[in-house]
Amino acid sequence: MLGQAAARLDVPLTVLDPMPGCPAATTALRHEVGSFTDYDAVIAAGSRADVVTVEIEHVDTAALAELARRGVAVHPSAQTLAVVNDKLAQRRRLAEAGVPGPRFMELSGSQDAEKFDLPAVQKLRYGGYDGRGVALVDRIDHTGVLPLSGPSYLEEKLEVASELAVLVARSGDGRVVTYPPFEMVMDPELHLVSAVKYPAGISSAVALEASRIARAAVEAVGGVGVHAVELFVVDDHSVLVNEIAPRPHNSGHLTIEASETDQFEQHLRAVLGLPLGSTRMRSPAVMRNLVGSGAEGSACYMGTDAVLSTEGAHLHLYGKRTSRAGRKMGHITVCREDLEDAAAAAARAAAAVRVTGDDAGESGGTNG
Amino acid sequence: MLGQAAARLDVPLTVLDPMPGCPAATTALRHEVGSFTDYDAVIAAGSRADVVTVEIEHVDTAALAELARRGVAVHPSAQTLAVVNDKLAQRRRLAEAGVPGPRFMELSGSQDAEKFDLPAVQKLRYGGYDGRGVALVDRIDHTGVLPLSGPSYLEEKLEVASELAVLVARSGDGRVVTYPPFEMVMDPELHLVSAVKYPAGISSAVALEASRIARAAVEAVGGVGVHAVELFVVDDHSVLVNEIAPRPHNSGHLTIEASETDQFEQHLRAVLGLPLGSTRMRSPAVMRNLVGSGAEGSACYMGTDAVLSTEGAHLHLYGKRTSRAGRKMGHITVCREDLEDAAAAAARAAAAVRVTGDDAGESGGTNG
Repeated sequence: MLGQAAARLDVPLTVLDPMPGCPAATTALRHEVGSFTDYDAVIAAGSRADVVTVEIEHVDTAALAELARRGVAVHPSAQTLAVVNDKLAQRRRLAEAGVPGPRFMELSGSQDAEKFDLPAVQKLRYGGYDGRGVALVDRIDHTGVLPLSGPSYLEEKLEVASELAVLVARSGDGRVVTYPPFEMVMDPELHLVSAVKYPAGISSAVALEASRIARAAVEAVGGVGVHAVELFVVDDHSVLVNEIAPRPHNSGHLTIEASETDQFEQHLRAVLGLPLGSTRMRSPAVMRNLVGSGAEGSACYMGTDAVLSTEGAHLHLYGKRTSRAGRKMGHITVCREDLEDAAAAAARAAAAVRVTGDDAGESGGTNG
Repeated sequence: MLGQAAARLDVPLTVLDPMPGCPAATTALRHEVGSFTDYDAVIAAGSRADVVTVEIEHVDTAALAELARRGVAVHPSAQTLAVVNDKLAQRRRLAEAGVPGPRFMELSGSQDAEKFDLPAVQKLRYGGYDGRGVALVDRIDHTGVLPLSGPSYLEEKLEVASELAVLVARSGDGRVVTYPPFEMVMDPELHLVSAVKYPAGISSAVALEASRIARAAVEAVGGVGVHAVELFVVDDHSVLVNEIAPRPHNSGHLTIEASETDQFEQHLRAVLGLPLGSTRMRSPAVMRNLVGSGAEGSACYMGTDAVLSTEGAHLHLYGKRTSRAGRKMGHITVCREDLEDAAAAAARAAAAVRVTGDDAGESGGTNG
């Protein structure tokens, strides 16, 4: 989707991705086949660019630092990514900057946990996402073993009233725009976002506080580009940072139709030093992900006609060749004057779609 | 822009275009380098496709007919294109179907013109566009020579109150949706569209009549896909067909932001037999083309920051490598609640942009 924005603005994009025929390559001018976690591949692809950015933050940051040393503009910087990718370092940086967050404590051994109020949440420092790398610690049993192994920390368990995401776009010279908060409706069992609603069902005071905190968080890590700041609203209506995603984010996909400037174009504007775009809302909207189910194999789409026939619905399929259970394969956004109408229509349309891995054969795109 | 819609819907697109690195190839999955006026090239590219469509109507229609004979779905058909591409045949077909148009008469020699009320308009049957292939005939001088040479016809000279375009999307099984009319504001000197305004400044009765006639026109030529029907509103508020463009059209670019379904996605839906999308207006909007000026050479863009800084403005650069005077290099669409605000903002933003051929060197995309 970054490639679609780049095509619109005639920005000649080179994609570094290990998979030939990957979705990002379709809309990019050039595709370098290689891993973004491979130092040499990042150096080779990046040294021919004027500006380097990321869509996945788990990049070889030493290579990014070296590119910056050679004069390539790298946004967000290796320093920002190093802090954000280590969730404990991110927590510490935000706390130092006075950005409100949950109480937390580094774990070096299970006995540390006893010093912290239980129940608490254990989080891995590196690599967790979509509910992975997070575990509830109710009590420490006689073995003293915690649920997750690997470098981790504890966070206080919060009574979360709602979860928000605020997109912040920041340019290299410090200009900042923020989008109004989006509400992430969580699936309580899967710990995944089941829907994103815009506008969020919060007071204007909470919205203002969320925007203020999100901006402070991105400034604290020196982020350049679009960042999504995930926030918790807790019982007493105070707002705390959950974590920062240093890139365009699943919660912001609805900006394509619901905002004056979509998050992908905004990201390009920010990293290229262009004027930042308006973040005005064009319409209330609800986004739902289309995730794979059933067997792993060649992606096969069923029921998409229901989306195409829904007033205000916009279908986005990512062109990933392989579907597997739980993989994000696309999304739909429904724009309606009434948010609850949009939510109901999005739920109906999403329920009609099935994406599966059909090992029987290749499948085209939008099949009914 | 068709490619951007195809990427969104995961439609694997192959482009046939003679120029390596052409804009359409950027967003397409595959690019076959070859001419769409070359029988063999069209057969070679098309015979590997499930569905063949056109973005430029001047394609080898014999090759399209052969592809259809071999079982490839060709939309619009070779028959439709043959009728539409011969403006006299198009006129005759529309007249036979009872679709209102200007009076017209085939010319076989200059003396024919004397039988027709002068002043009149001489039009070439083939290949005219953007004011080319059209000439005013005030009187026949003693030489008897008409302004244009080549197969042509005469049309009555109309007192045009306004020019409209109505997009009609029609599927192979006859389903049809129409967009509300757009108003094409013409530059009286250049005979080019200077701006497209939506909604058009017409009564609802004229709008209804325009939609009815546009639909009848597309049905008369058996068109499948998105067609733009250009219409004249004449003094007494009657509506006449000027001509049909059998493809997504410059007048419809504002649908990307101003309509629920943009003309490119709508075209894909129509030719692929998918459900047609809503044509509801999302916002009033004004589109202006960004055309090359000055020397021919590598495209260089100046002043685009003014567009990026305009509230509600959306910048589209086509990635054409070479700029020359009068060539369409991009467009801007401004969405505002108030149409006249949008018109003023679009005029200011467009005036700030300059696209020239800068032979001094290569130039990137969006430069300030």
